[in-house]
Amino acid sequence: MSLLVVGTVAFDGLETPFGVRESILGGSATYIGMSAGYFVDHVNLVSVVGGDFPDANIDLLKKKNIDTEGLQIIEEGKTFFWKGKYHTDMNSRDTLDTQLNVLESFDPIIPDNYKDCKYLMLGNLVPAIQLRVLEQLENRPKLIVMDTMNLWMDATMDDLKKMIKLVDVLTINDEEARQLAEENNLVKAAEKIQRMGPSILIIKKGEHGALLFGKEGEIFFAPALPLKNVIDPTGAGDTFAGGFMGHLSKTDDISFDNMKKGLIYASTMASFCVETFGPEGLENLENKDIELRRKELTKLIDFN
Amino acid sequence: MSLLVVGTVAFDGLETPFGVRESILGGSATYIGMSAGYFVDHVNLVSVVGGDFPDANIDLLKKKNIDTEGLQIIEEGKTFFWKGKYHTDMNSRDTLDTQLNVLESFDPIIPDNYKDCKYLMLGNLVPAIQLRVLEQLENRPKLIVMDTMNLWMDATMDDLKKMIKLVDVLTINDEEARQLAEENNLVKAAEKIQRMGPSILIIKKGEHGALLFGKEGEIFFAPALPLKNVIDPTGAGDTFAGGFMGHLSKTDDISFDNMKKGLIYASTMASFCVETFGPEGLENLENKDIELRRKELTKLIDFN
Repeated sequence: MSLLVVGTVAFDGLETPFGVRESILGGSATYIGMSAGYFVDHVNLVSVVGGDFPDANIDLLKKKNIDTEGLQIIEEGKTFFWKGKYHTDMNSRDTLDTQLNVLESFDPIIPDNYKDCKYLMLGNLVPAIQLRVLEQLENRPKLIVMDTMNLWMDATMDDLKKMIKLVDVLTINDEEARQLAEENNLVKAAEKIQRMGPSILIIKKGEHGALLFGKEGEIFFAPALPLKNVIDPTGAGDTFAGGFMGHLSKTDDISFDNMKKGLIYASTMASFCVETFGPEGLENLENKDIELRRKELTKLIDFN
Repeated sequence: MSLLVVGTVAFDGLETPFGVRESILGGSATYIGMSAGYFVDHVNLVSVVGGDFPDANIDLLKKKNIDTEGLQIIEEGKTFFWKGKYHTDMNSRDTLDTQLNVLESFDPIIPDNYKDCKYLMLGNLVPAIQLRVLEQLENRPKLIVMDTMNLWMDATMDDLKKMIKLVDVLTINDEEARQLAEENNLVKAAEKIQRMGPSILIIKKGEHGALLFGKEGEIFFAPALPLKNVIDPTGAGDTFAGGFMGHLSKTDDISFDNMKKGLIYASTMASFCVETFGPEGLENLENKDIELRRKELTKLIDFN
C-alpha cells in the first residue's frame, strides 16, 4: 500500500517557555514520514535539503521506515531554516526567521518507482510545487491528502484554490478554515470548503482536538489528549497527518468509518510529538506505547 | 431528589454579531433552573429581583418546573442588570454595563422546605453569599456543585478559596482555571485546584467542550456540538451546569460514570442555549428534542 509523502525537510530554531533549540531537525515531510513510519514499513519521501544536512539525520529517517531515494541533496545549497517563538500559552507563535535556501528553487522530482503510489500526502508547501507532484504521477492515487497554511492564502490564493480542487482530503487548522472560507462559523466554513473541491475536510484545532467532515454531512470529532507536559507544539499538525495517512495506507480502507479511526491514531501520534522538542518524541516509540495511548484517548470519551 | 439552585436572576443587554437585545431575561439561576427543569419536575430556586421584574417572567420560570417561593422580590428595588458585547468570533466579550441593584444587598434566605436539599447548585455569585447559603442548610447536601468566575478571583480570592474548600464539584472555565491555579498547563492546574478542595472539577472550554476531572486522576471529555447557528453564547455555561445537575438529581447517582453521562447532557443542553438570544432556546424543548441532540453528540465521538 505505497505511501508517498512530499513536503519540507528543514532545520528549525525553536523557543518555547520550556527551552531553546538553535537548529534541530524539522519540516513537514519529516514529521509526517516519521509518524506514518510507525504504521507502514515503507514511506516514500520527496523533499530537498542542502549540503549542510548531516548523514545522521538521513540515517534517522531511514531507521523510521522512510525511503530517502526522493530526498534531493543540493550539495552547494543550505537546508530550509525556520525559527519561531511560542507564547506562554503555546497556542500562538511568532515567526522570527525564514530562510528558504534550497526550497526556493525546489523542483520535486518523483523517482520512477514512487510514481504509482496509492496514497499521497502533500505536506505544507507552495501550492505550485504540490501541483508539480500530481503532474508526474502515472495514475491518480486512491487518496490524495493535502495540508496547507494561511501563508499561501495570503500569497497565492489562486494556485491554492486550483490545488484544493484536485485533492480528496484537505487538512487545515481552524483559523485557516475561517480565512479560506471567509466564514466565521466553522460548520458553515467546512461546507464552503468542501464545495471548493475536497470531499473530506479535517479541521485541526490543536489542543482542542480535530473535526472530520464527511461527504454526506457527517461530522466526527477526535479530542486531543490532555497532557501534563507540553514542551513544543512544532510539527504536531504534521505528525497528526502522518498518523492519519499511516493508518489509512496500512489498512487500505478509505471509508469514513476507517477515517474516524485514523483521526484517533492521528491525535495519538500528535500527543507524543508535543511532549519533546522537535521530532524527538517520535524517535523511539514502540507499538505498545502507541496502543496504550490510543486506549487512553479512547477512554477520555467513553461514557458507556 | 430535591435540587436547590441559588444564583442570579437578571436582565441582560446583549450585543452579538447577530443582533441586539436591550433587556431580556438572564442570570445564572435562570439558565441553570430552566435547564435542570427538563430533568426533574421540581427545581427550588433562591434569588432576588426588583419590582420591575414582570410576572410573565415568573410564570415562565414556573412553567419550566421552577419553584419560585425562594425568589425574593424587592418591590422598591431594580433587578440586577448586565450588558455585554460579543466579538466577531463569539469567544470573547466586553462588559459594557453592570448595575448590581437589588443584588448589592442580597441575603439569600432559604425557605424552610428547601433546607434539606440533596443536590445544591451554587450559581455564580459573590462567594460570601454562596457561603451564607451553606450556613442555612439543615444537613450537608449529598452533592454541592459551585460555579464561579474570574471577577471573584480578582476581588475576593480569600472568600473564594474558603468556599471552594466546602464544595464537591467546582465548575470553571479554562482561563479561570489557569488563573486560580496560577498554572498554564490545564492538567496541572486541575490537580492544583482539586488539592484546594473540590474532589471533582469541571473545566468548561466553550465551543471546545468540557473536561471532567475525577478523584482518582480520571479524565473525561465531552465535546460541544459543532453548530451552524450560534447566535448568543450568554448563559451557555449555566445551562451546561443545569443539565449536569438535572441529570444527577434525576438519577440520584453521583458515581464518576454517571457524572460522565451528566456531562454529555450538560453539553446537549448548552447547544440549545447558544442558538437563540437569552434563554429562548430553553423555553419550548421536548424530551425527544433533547434525546435526539444527545444522540447527535454521542455520534460525534463514536468510532466503533
